[in-house]
Amino acid sequence: MDFDLAAGTAVLQRTPGCLRALLAGLPPAWTDAAEGPDTWSPYVVVGHLIHGERTDWIPRARIILEQGPNRRFEPFDRTAQLRESQGRPLDELLDELARLRTENLATLAGWRLTARQLALTGEHPALGTVTLSQLLATWVAHDLGHIAQTVRVMAKQYREEVGPWREYLPVLNR
Amino acid sequence: MDFDLAAGTAVLQRTPGCLRALLAGLPPAWTDAAEGPDTWSPYVVVGHLIHGERTDWIPRARIILEQGPNRRFEPFDRTAQLRESQGRPLDELLDELARLRTENLATLAGWRLTARQLALTGEHPALGTVTLSQLLATWVAHDLGHIAQTVRVMAKQYREEVGPWREYLPVLNR
Repeated sequence: MDFDLAAGTAVLQRTPGCLRALLAGLPPAWTDAAEGPDTWSPYVVVGHLIHGERTDWIPRARIILEQGPNRRFEPFDRTAQLRESQGRPLDELLDELARLRTENLATLAGWRLTARQLALTGEHPALGTVTLSQLLATWVAHDLGHIAQTVRVMAKQYREEVGPWREYLPVLNR
Repeated sequence: MDFDLAAGTAVLQRTPGCLRALLAGLPPAWTDAAEGPDTWSPYVVVGHLIHGERTDWIPRARIILEQGPNRRFEPFDRTAQLRESQGRPLDELLDELARLRTENLATLAGWRLTARQLALTGEHPALGTVTLSQLLATWVAHDLGHIAQTVRVMAKQYREEVGPWREYLPVLNR
């Protein structure tokens, strides 16, 4: 499906509520579980999404829209949440994600982007030239990828507990 | 983590709300999307989970708990939803899933299962001897696997639209 701003926004709106429905009030045995050393728990994923709301999607979209002389994005810090949000209650992080997302989608809607603007480009520090449309599609796919990661990490906590059913559950073997 | 009935139930309670937060009101371009021929859309996944509530988890748990002479489960029909729920509005299916799940968790709680009961066994038609504990852990992991599938299918709709970011998004390449 071609990138469509309304359809993409419909998913972006839903991510915080989806994660809240899944994670709020769950025991830490689920929300702090990971897949092994240096892998992310659901808790860390929520912190990562918050950091993206602050420093990634909208700031990069602004760089593209302004079309200034330097359109190179700041590198995104993939581990910032390990310093910034660690120790805060998960419910508070879920609230913050929802608030930031609402603000960012209001900003996005306020731009009333045209097809011409969606084709404008910026410079990713590693990937090179990218369009605003690709940035916004990535925002959506990035959300969905991290929801997939969250539930995969949780499912894997039962890798042994499911016994012989493991062979029917590909999510446990990824 | 060892299978714990309270912790497992905490996830089972959240699945219908998570899917509702993700899918309710989304355009069919998302909810009817799939990964190719004979793969499942988010819509089909919800129908599959409904069929499981009716015919899989609780009926199989009953067979184990009753410890009758024949403890062999009925084979589960993985494509029943293609006949049973096709054509019904997704919002109606999400309501039905929530209602059936609430009923089934009330049944489960009413059993006040002991460790001894959790170790009782039944006969899976393909996998052989399985315990009640394994069945209940599989119910949880099966939910989480289908949430992962749902968001993966959605993410893949933007496989081309994300441009060069594709290499950073493993969910698009599974």
